[in-house]
Amino acid sequence: MIDTVLIVGAGPTGLSTAAGVSSAGRKVVLVEKEKVLGGAPILSRYAKLVPSGEWAKDAIGRMVKRVESDARVTIHRGAKVARLAGDAGDFTATLSDCTEVRAGAVILATGFTHFDSINKPEWGFGTFEDVVTTTQVEQMVAAGKIACPSDGRTPARVCILLCVGSRDRQIGREWCSKICCTVSANLAMEIKELAPKTDVYIYYMDIRTFGLYEDKYYWRSQEEFRIKYVKARIAEVTRGPDGRLLVKGEDTLVKRPIVIPFDLVVHAIGMDPNLDNPEIAKVFGVGLEKHGFIDRAEHYTSSFASTRRGIYVGGAALAPEDIDSCISHGLAMAMRAVGDLHAPAQAAA
Amino acid sequence: MIDTVLIVGAGPTGLSTAAGVSSAGRKVVLVEKEKVLGGAPILSRYAKLVPSGEWAKDAIGRMVKRVESDARVTIHRGAKVARLAGDAGDFTATLSDCTEVRAGAVILATGFTHFDSINKPEWGFGTFEDVVTTTQVEQMVAAGKIACPSDGRTPARVCILLCVGSRDRQIGREWCSKICCTVSANLAMEIKELAPKTDVYIYYMDIRTFGLYEDKYYWRSQEEFRIKYVKARIAEVTRGPDGRLLVKGEDTLVKRPIVIPFDLVVHAIGMDPNLDNPEIAKVFGVGLEKHGFIDRAEHYTSSFASTRRGIYVGGAALAPEDIDSCISHGLAMAMRAVGDLHAPAQAAA
Repeated sequence: MIDTVLIVGAGPTGLSTAAGVSSAGRKVVLVEKEKVLGGAPILSRYAKLVPSGEWAKDAIGRMVKRVESDARVTIHRGAKVARLAGDAGDFTATLSDCTEVRAGAVILATGFTHFDSINKPEWGFGTFEDVVTTTQVEQMVAAGKIACPSDGRTPARVCILLCVGSRDRQIGREWCSKICCTVSANLAMEIKELAPKTDVYIYYMDIRTFGLYEDKYYWRSQEEFRIKYVKARIAEVTRGPDGRLLVKGEDTLVKRPIVIPFDLVVHAIGMDPNLDNPEIAKVFGVGLEKHGFIDRAEHYTSSFASTRRGIYVGGAALAPEDIDSCISHGLAMAMRAVGDLHAPAQAAA
Repeated sequence: MIDTVLIVGAGPTGLSTAAGVSSAGRKVVLVEKEKVLGGAPILSRYAKLVPSGEWAKDAIGRMVKRVESDARVTIHRGAKVARLAGDAGDFTATLSDCTEVRAGAVILATGFTHFDSINKPEWGFGTFEDVVTTTQVEQMVAAGKIACPSDGRTPARVCILLCVGSRDRQIGREWCSKICCTVSANLAMEIKELAPKTDVYIYYMDIRTFGLYEDKYYWRSQEEFRIKYVKARIAEVTRGPDGRLLVKGEDTLVKRPIVIPFDLVVHAIGMDPNLDNPEIAKVFGVGLEKHGFIDRAEHYTSSFASTRRGIYVGGAALAPEDIDSCISHGLAMAMRAVGDLHAPAQAAA
């Protein structure tokens, strides 16, 4: 049994795994394809995180610093695993930088890919400058100013369209991306904090602010911030004669067509399976589930087992997932790997 | 540092923690107030679990057996922690059976309490025999027969009312119970499997089959099993002149009053904070959040920390939670505790 855990991906999941494995005195090799650690919250410059309200750069930044200053963690940035040989207890990975890494267990914390709104062309992204994504608004919030990209004005009216690239069979995305409703409610409140006079609307199919997010985000956003929720089926986003954007659809509560003008239209983009998943499946010899996320073998007595013995998978590599759950999965996988290093890996039941 | 972890609660969360801690070669003392292990899925005799489709008695039963046959785990059944002295690294717990337990870290896996439908009297539970809860229907499915309690007949029409004891400010439950939508869609399909001629309706506010549950439960239940979903605001459940139950409310999609007869009305009951939480808070010296769930101190670099150093909290003790997440939390807390036993506990940041 090789006393090292190989972790692939340094987003919240992988960072959490690394800290967990190290906390038990075991060595980690952390491989991240990007040049910086932190995953989507850092790379996409998210604003304040759900549900802590901490800035992403502080919260995830602390996770990064902890791992970067950990003598038990060796980090390879801008690198991928090119080949994996061996079996549970003694894997040998060859990295794209030609390093060879021996590891007793392997963690896939390879995350997701943001949905590309270009694939929903009738909703105006790519056609109109003032149709943006939640990621772009996160960056505006992080930079302290909400503005229409076309001319820099503060928008008088903003709408957030939920389920862009989610719950949409027409474009091959059957799944729900789980956290966009809550993130959008949070973002709507952040917009109001920066631009109190701006009216903010959220167009939804179902509001999925599950658990304790219900009053913290859904109710609070309505009662304290006057965010307006409209249950609607959106048909298209066009431009009116006065140059403002027009959101056209049907209000499904009153069964009436609606055409409403906005200055800024925000796509609440969903979580796709990581575009690299076919390659990851091949290199690591693990299965994918039908949507293209990495598959799991078991739920109860061999949690986070992938379909290959000694390789674990968690976080948004498994399914659309929120950051708190990713961190939980990361620690849980750390426990599985530390358990394997203590005693031979159990077969994935 | 005492090389033992004290775990309070032997549901999916606590069982998962126990297996995790033991996998690293550390000792566990597991204290469960009931006489049997397994928590709600075993005590309430759940049927097939979401999302694995495995029977609760098999899936959670395997988790119980693994812990019961583990020489590193000492189990106290029918016992509670009466007092806790000491600090992180060296706690001394006095159990209700007068045992003293020394532990380096403490895990609160104390779970939730099912909402008692008696607290929603206008919806007929306690008044009409054929108004039951999802828990009772789980037991019918586990026993292989769907029947009206009043006379044993197979119901021709069943409705499941979502959000009973959830998202209901009038009765002091502001939160969403997270998993009832998905569990109810699953249960509706199980009813159809046992009674194919029965019509099954689900009355909802928002359907929250998040992530990959969307097509696996929401779409499949409609397309393969013809479950009918009605967005409605329910006013009351009464009895009609022919003796059948009448569900009265407003269809919020067509804005029309609806009065529909059913043979069996099912309350999809929510998850309350554990009724013991005030006592738990006192004995363990931990804080509760505003709804009465146990509070957490941090989300990122000290995950699952309660407000007291060396004590961790996870699963449905923190918030309404699904079983997979509870198991994940359990392993994650195991990692925290194993880390503490390896090196002194970090202050909850």
